[in-house]
Amino acid sequence: MSAQKPSIPQGTRDFGPAVVARRNYIFGVIRRVFEKFGYAPLETPTLENLSVLTGKYGEEGNQLIFKVLNSGNFLKKQKGDVVKEEVTPEDLIAGTRAVLPKIAEKGLRYDLTVPFARYVVMNRGTLTFPFKRYQIQPVWRADRPARGRYREFYQCDADVVGTDSLLCEAEIVLMMSEVLTTLGLTDHTIKINHRRVLGAFYQALGGEGTEIDLFTAIDKLDKIGREGVEKELLERGFSAAAAERLFDLLSVEGDFEEKLERLLAGFVTAGVAPDNATADGYKGLQDLQQVLAYLRGFGFDKWQNLEFDVTLARGLSYYTGCIFEIKINNVNMGSVSGGGRYDNLTGAFGLPGVSGVGFSFGVDRLYDCLEDLQLFPEAVATTTRCLLTNFDAESELAMLPVLRQLRAAGVASELFPEAGKLGKQFKFADAKGIPYVLIQGPEERAAGQFKLKTLATGQEQVVTLEEAITELTK
Amino acid sequence: MSAQKPSIPQGTRDFGPAVVARRNYIFGVIRRVFEKFGYAPLETPTLENLSVLTGKYGEEGNQLIFKVLNSGNFLKKQKGDVVKEEVTPEDLIAGTRAVLPKIAEKGLRYDLTVPFARYVVMNRGTLTFPFKRYQIQPVWRADRPARGRYREFYQCDADVVGTDSLLCEAEIVLMMSEVLTTLGLTDHTIKINHRRVLGAFYQALGGEGTEIDLFTAIDKLDKIGREGVEKELLERGFSAAAAERLFDLLSVEGDFEEKLERLLAGFVTAGVAPDNATADGYKGLQDLQQVLAYLRGFGFDKWQNLEFDVTLARGLSYYTGCIFEIKINNVNMGSVSGGGRYDNLTGAFGLPGVSGVGFSFGVDRLYDCLEDLQLFPEAVATTTRCLLTNFDAESELAMLPVLRQLRAAGVASELFPEAGKLGKQFKFADAKGIPYVLIQGPEERAAGQFKLKTLATGQEQVVTLEEAITELTK
Repeated sequence: MSAQKPSIPQGTRDFGPAVVARRNYIFGVIRRVFEKFGYAPLETPTLENLSVLTGKYGEEGNQLIFKVLNSGNFLKKQKGDVVKEEVTPEDLIAGTRAVLPKIAEKGLRYDLTVPFARYVVMNRGTLTFPFKRYQIQPVWRADRPARGRYREFYQCDADVVGTDSLLCEAEIVLMMSEVLTTLGLTDHTIKINHRRVLGAFYQALGGEGTEIDLFTAIDKLDKIGREGVEKELLERGFSAAAAERLFDLLSVEGDFEEKLERLLAGFVTAGVAPDNATADGYKGLQDLQQVLAYLRGFGFDKWQNLEFDVTLARGLSYYTGCIFEIKINNVNMGSVSGGGRYDNLTGAFGLPGVSGVGFSFGVDRLYDCLEDLQLFPEAVATTTRCLLTNFDAESELAMLPVLRQLRAAGVASELFPEAGKLGKQFKFADAKGIPYVLIQGPEERAAGQFKLKTLATGQEQVVTLEEAITELTK
Repeated sequence: MSAQKPSIPQGTRDFGPAVVARRNYIFGVIRRVFEKFGYAPLETPTLENLSVLTGKYGEEGNQLIFKVLNSGNFLKKQKGDVVKEEVTPEDLIAGTRAVLPKIAEKGLRYDLTVPFARYVVMNRGTLTFPFKRYQIQPVWRADRPARGRYREFYQCDADVVGTDSLLCEAEIVLMMSEVLTTLGLTDHTIKINHRRVLGAFYQALGGEGTEIDLFTAIDKLDKIGREGVEKELLERGFSAAAAERLFDLLSVEGDFEEKLERLLAGFVTAGVAPDNATADGYKGLQDLQQVLAYLRGFGFDKWQNLEFDVTLARGLSYYTGCIFEIKINNVNMGSVSGGGRYDNLTGAFGLPGVSGVGFSFGVDRLYDCLEDLQLFPEAVATTTRCLLTNFDAESELAMLPVLRQLRAAGVASELFPEAGKLGKQFKFADAKGIPYVLIQGPEERAAGQFKLKTLATGQEQVVTLEEAITELTK
């Protein structure tokens, strides 16, 4: 076997011990909050049938799914495979589109929502509804790698399906708030809006253009400003009068409650909307009022972090109710979380009418925020707490029962595996970020004592084993 | 989008909440033991370059690697990809072998050892040696699915590289023992042997056949017995006299120490081995003696669970020192763990001479053992501890501060999200395995009290919120 210079694929990453520990800290905070709210863990396979994935993410999404070659001789007919047709030379010459369905039947998980919908449909007979699940797993996208954009990354989703109760929306706000507060990301804004409110805007404009065009344009307000959005609306077939009417509605000001009341009045006085659209908008505003009432009932007290943002649109087309997005204000970073209610998640798999609401945290972005703001607790960085030094064969043997007792007390510890110079062993502890070194030379051994050195301060104290354990388990 | 009946690929699994909780229990036990011994977590990407994977697992292994199609138009030249050659119609007609390297450059992680070796080589400049890492991640093999054989399954590896110290081998025995004991799998046997001892056997037979043929035959002793192994040895070019000599050596009896001494004597008196082979076998036996000495130093007291098994061979060709395997005795199941020392893990990636030792737990088999023996703790099965009932809009609102206080006390709890009949809500709690239900009707609300019902016993007690929290946090 000739030696080769190894590498990893573009857009993928190795996570060394310090990074894994920090990522696990984030996962742990999220997991504990999810579980405290009654969400239970689900894990789905990395490999999904392409028949499940294809057509769920739009044309662009289809292209970005990683496809896995059928095993064995993938150009020949596969016994027991879904696609049994043999690949012909003509297919191959015809190119990708003709060949693909015949040589690849599986793909890598692209998000956690579609596998969740598939799971609910396949297990509807045995699941207890409302079904609350969370899922923390990697997904893969054949996107062009860029700064902050990876081909393999984790999503942390929580969804509840099988209930229309707006209690779920209120609890999502609570969960978002608790995760961010626990992580120390206190300067955040949880934006909330409702698809029906956006729908009422569309109706109020008099039925020009398309709803999705309107949402897409509004979604860009942050980036391109009012003028840019107006220009885009005109290009997409809206009139100048409609654009003006839209900005009258969007310009509503005040706190959450004031905005709700002013919009309710605005829909009435606008006078341009057909009755059903106004009713639709009313339903959206009433939903938001109910969410507010639940939050008050919970004693929610972070109102400065919650914003009714009528310009929030969210890209995904399947949302039908409340929508959410989180921005960390003191870091230059896109949204770290988003979600919303959907009415027909499982329709594509033959189970219509399953309403649910869910949201997702982006762990890579949270990680970058915590790093930028230096919010990782120091204790997260290391695993081993104490290194025992190894002078010679005799001291090595004498340290073994000490090591056993430290570990029995729950202290992650290791004995340097080779006898030798102390300097090298201190350097080892330092490089690994091990905070304590326990030393026993012949003199200390005779006295039944140890030196416990704190590497950060260089401070040494003479201690018994019991005292060392007390110090190390503090 | 037409409705379809969804499915998951053969050999893959969804893990619902109860199973995830039980699997996480196993992972948690393993992780805590690994960390207590100073091993730190590493995670490598799911996708590896095929150039890294190919040729590391033998010809059969090459076939079993899942290959991922290049993204975009995979039949056309890819900018920035490693393989830039365009696929021609002739290539396609020529079939799999000619096309594969051009249309797929990435594969799914096949084990955790090769990615670990790659990581060590890529990061040798910054790592601190000896480097102890553990890795708990899924791997994928395009094997024919069967009972207990999956295409996606988890491995839990711990390895230390950059030291020859046999302290590591002794600590592996301790870690194996602690994991199994913590899981309640007390009736187990940790088998240990040494490749050099096996090598000395081979030399002692007079240089007939090949070493790997001998190891393969010995490995089958459990399954095909002495006669079967003798037959196989004759077929593989060994003489009947050599086979008899082998069984004289293999028949050594006694406890660990007695076997060591008798083998040492046996190698001397066999008189048939060339000097260097005897020395080789001596080195192996001396290594095992040193491991024993370390274990005694640690106060290891599970000698009945440790066996010097001279017939243990382990399939993998890269082992060069001590080898390990674990069998659970009171369950009908293959080995749940194995490992050994290797001298040249990173040679294939251009970094020779890195010695290390490691082992791996098979989580699926451990899971089946715990299930067969009913060893999963009951508390592992559920997440939500308490369901709050929802009578009507008024009681729903009144329950919100209660829910907040329960969660603040760390009690995973949920309010049934829809007002309605209590019977349905009790059924929900029962189906989800929620152990407690907290009820507050108008009467209890007036008195500032609750009914706390234990579902398993049907017992109800009238309590204050403080009393409920005390009971629920027990």
